[in-house]
Amino acid sequence: MHRHEIKRRILYADTDKAGVVYYANYLRFFEAARTEYFRALGKSYADFERMGILLTVVEAHIKYLGPAEYDDEIAIRAWITRVRRTRIDFAYEVVNSEGKTICEGSTILGCIGEATRRPQPLPEEMVNLLADKL
Amino acid sequence: MHRHEIKRRILYADTDKAGVVYYANYLRFFEAARTEYFRALGKSYADFERMGILLTVVEAHIKYLGPAEYDDEIAIRAWITRVRRTRIDFAYEVVNSEGKTICEGSTILGCIGEATRRPQPLPEEMVNLLADKL
Amino acid sequence: MHRHEIKRRILYADTDKAGVVYYANYLRFFEAARTEYFRALGKSYADFERMGILLTVVEAHIKYLGPAEYDDEIAIRAWITRVRRTRIDFAYEVVNSEGKTICEGSTILGCIGEATRRPQPLPEEMVNLLADKL
Amino acid sequence: MHRHEIKRRILYADTDKAGVVYYANYLRFFEAARTEYFRALGKSYADFERMGILLTVVEAHIKYLGPAEYDDEIAIRAWITRVRRTRIDFAYEVVNSEGKTICEGSTILGCIGEATRRPQPLPEEMVNLLADKL
Repeated sequence: MHRHEIKRRILYADTDKAGVVYYANYLRFFEAARTEYFRALGKSYADFERMGILLTVVEAHIKYLGPAEYDDEIAIRAWITRVRRTRIDFAYEVVNSEGKTICEGSTILGCIGEATRRPQPLPEEMVNLLADKL
Repeated sequence: MHRHEIKRRILYADTDKAGVVYYANYLRFFEAARTEYFRALGKSYADFERMGILLTVVEAHIKYLGPAEYDDEIAIRAWITRVRRTRIDFAYEVVNSEGKTICEGSTILGCIGEATRRPQPLPEEMVNLLADKL
Repeated sequence: MHRHEIKRRILYADTDKAGVVYYANYLRFFEAARTEYFRALGKSYADFERMGILLTVVEAHIKYLGPAEYDDEIAIRAWITRVRRTRIDFAYEVVNSEGKTICEGSTILGCIGEATRRPQPLPEEMVNLLADKL
Repeated sequence: MHRHEIKRRILYADTDKAGVVYYANYLRFFEAARTEYFRALGKSYADFERMGILLTVVEAHIKYLGPAEYDDEIAIRAWITRVRRTRIDFAYEVVNSEGKTICEGSTILGCIGEATRRPQPLPEEMVNLLADKL
């Protein structure tokens, strides 16, 4: 199983009044990790767009296990858990600088035709490329 | 079952490059609806803080059923689905101006002692007040 | 001088670790007030788009005079201070629920041709409509 | 003059319906660059907090010179332009991956006593450390 990790320093912008990362911002972190996962495979969202496919999140799930503190450098890991012709499932974990897992999550990306706005299958070579990383 | 509804006009700030609401922003909308739900009961987060309790989201789940378009006025509905001494479960739905449900979600709020940072039961009167709305 | 006012309740989403509204979020509030200003005139960004014109902020200035606290209901006021063929200047003020001015700002909107991505003059009737409100 | 540069990849989270970075998000980028500027000097906001001083933005100014596109890797540069006992002035520029300056800005940070919430002078050694970088 191929995992991709990015690092990110927590800013004031990420926090809320409780002094820790606001709960919605983990979905931003997931996007950042997912994008870099594709980049590490030599693919970008722009490549999908060139195939006429938009990747859109159709479902997201997040478990908050502990707080991410201001100025901490967290690691966000993303990996693919399942690939179907019109869906790509990702899992994520966020680890703080002490190595504690503070968040786990998953998303389902749907593949949508840019013109049709309906589910559109990925080209088989893309399915194979991604399935190889499971 | 008591439901509380708020309205919100979609801004550029809410959208992303795909021209529709960015997926993380639904969690902001959920917060807005949840807060107004409590306010409609005569309670605010500040009231929980006065009991020495912080409400913190420990789990969130979102299904994206359709896009929310720029300048549309969406309705966000929140209601409580379960109350335990240290947990309050909310469900949400987001409906666009044509009446189409575009998002469904749920969150689990954990009740944490402000001093201890550990689970701390809600006072019984609060549990009863909330359970009355199921 | 025509002023348009909107109200907004401060959420956790708006705050940062300092317990008050994060400094970037005032620009979101300005956008909300500016959009409703146009709507009150019977115009929307979509109307400008139908003229082939995108309104884009080319300059912004903000003075932070005091904090906006969580759960406070602030008022955001927007008004036009100058209209030229390719520029619309707005001013803003944000007032907390005790009537204290906590933020003042201004933006310059540039009128850009959607196709050309270059400055494109507003139709004269639009200039006149806006200038009437000065 | 000491300048500090950070890089940042533009995400969907940063963009809006116009397909480019939403105007408020440059203030987030400025925060990121300013924080890393202090870190490069061996100082963090936490160090200021240990002196009982909060740094709070009292004024911000932004000129938007061109769009920052999705997936582009931008550079954000921050440097100090003036230091007074209770104020630190920063300037910023944002450059896209083709080397074009797309944004210029400035902020004034006020030094506030954590307890008093009133202006509180920086220790002289801090003023000297910062003034050295002008």
